[in-house]
Amino acid sequence: MLIVRYKYKRHIRYGILEDGMIEEISRTPFLDLERTGSRYPLEEVEILTPVYPEKIIAVGLNYRDHAEEFHLPIPEEPILFLKPASSLVAHEGDIVYPPESHRVDYEAELALICKDQCFAVSPREARRHILGYCCSNDVTARDLQIKDGQWTRAKSFDTFCPLGPYIAMGVDASNLAIRLKLNGELRQSSSTSNMIFPPEELFSFVSRVMTLYPGDVIMTGTPSGVGELSVGDLVEVEIEHIGLLRNRVVKLQ
Amino acid sequence: MLIVRYKYKRHIRYGILEDGMIEEISRTPFLDLERTGSRYPLEEVEILTPVYPEKIIAVGLNYRDHAEEFHLPIPEEPILFLKPASSLVAHEGDIVYPPESHRVDYEAELALICKDQCFAVSPREARRHILGYCCSNDVTARDLQIKDGQWTRAKSFDTFCPLGPYIAMGVDASNLAIRLKLNGELRQSSSTSNMIFPPEELFSFVSRVMTLYPGDVIMTGTPSGVGELSVGDLVEVEIEHIGLLRNRVVKLQ
Repeated sequence: MLIVRYKYKRHIRYGILEDGMIEEISRTPFLDLERTGSRYPLEEVEILTPVYPEKIIAVGLNYRDHAEEFHLPIPEEPILFLKPASSLVAHEGDIVYPPESHRVDYEAELALICKDQCFAVSPREARRHILGYCCSNDVTARDLQIKDGQWTRAKSFDTFCPLGPYIAMGVDASNLAIRLKLNGELRQSSSTSNMIFPPEELFSFVSRVMTLYPGDVIMTGTPSGVGELSVGDLVEVEIEHIGLLRNRVVKLQ
Repeated sequence: MLIVRYKYKRHIRYGILEDGMIEEISRTPFLDLERTGSRYPLEEVEILTPVYPEKIIAVGLNYRDHAEEFHLPIPEEPILFLKPASSLVAHEGDIVYPPESHRVDYEAELALICKDQCFAVSPREARRHILGYCCSNDVTARDLQIKDGQWTRAKSFDTFCPLGPYIAMGVDASNLAIRLKLNGELRQSSSTSNMIFPPEELFSFVSRVMTLYPGDVIMTGTPSGVGELSVGDLVEVEIEHIGLLRNRVVKLQ
């Protein structure tokens, strides 16, 4: 089931997407999926990021193919960083190339959406605290990442966190094809089965550090094939059974 | 003028603190300071963190005395990191020592509170976007900071961001005494005039990366004298004309 957060006539609502139509729900998917009966064609609404979370937690090197590509050792534990909510941009929104960087990269990633408040959950318990999955792009100013040593500035610019388009619920995320296309050309192609720390383990690891809240996002790392974005590029992250997240790169006005 | 966010009979409000009494304001200090006339003795309310922000941005090495102490070069640009809102704890709240770490340090810091939504402001303009100042403690699991290389996990545990007790408005923060006492003994003592990047420059630098929102917090780095916390310790951050932030260190229950 696909859950979409959208704006229609200035109201922000959640709905269920079926056959190109959105059916509004009364509350939020963190509570229940009670349908109101109001239906809208997908093309008449503005799609928003599926959440506006308290926090977005991301992880460094988490795909075996990406580690092999750079001859890096497999990490013993996940390396965490945070992206601010101000960096979010929705499906079809623009990624703004900042003047501070001369090398901005794409990174296709599977994102988890946290369902409820929880702390210190085991990997086994994690599944019932994950509401669902969506696509994300961990846009990174590679030159600033290298210069700073710490990754925060490089990954925190406004629009550096495309997220969406929908939340896919009831999906088994252990072996899904994940792809990135740049201007229609395939650049990243892997499977979530290549993750070093699978979603439930990551969720558990993060939850032992920070209390997680409904809507919090965990991004699960990128496979091999990361590369450079240029102004004018169209970048698409596609994950099997989840969706396709498309964004264009533009210059700061 | 001191602004306090507090809970009284289950309601959360902002008020103005004068002579041990809080006078409630109608809205929030980000809008205006219209007083309602309702007054409460300070000891009858529960003091909360002055804000629950979208983001908390912090900066590495930013005091000359701290750089000299560790024989580190003066950085050319601020090194940024983020702490999650879930790590906040109020004045008199407990810092919980996590089982994952065997070395947790205090770091006394001046924090700025952002007044309004802004992006790419100059250092000169920054002053009018800063609502005020408060005390903070950038609690850090030093062993995990070294192990991970990235600082996020080490600085993101629940309760690792004491903030408060009040927002001091109308203060010139360019030369204020900043002190930390551990169980009553002086451990850090410096002046905000020793900052490498003063508040307005930091604010400007951050605002060129991320859109700032009302209530966002910028922590400005710690002076020399950082050291270890143990379970049972009482740690106090005191900044001249701003206030005293007190927290006790406890074991995870």
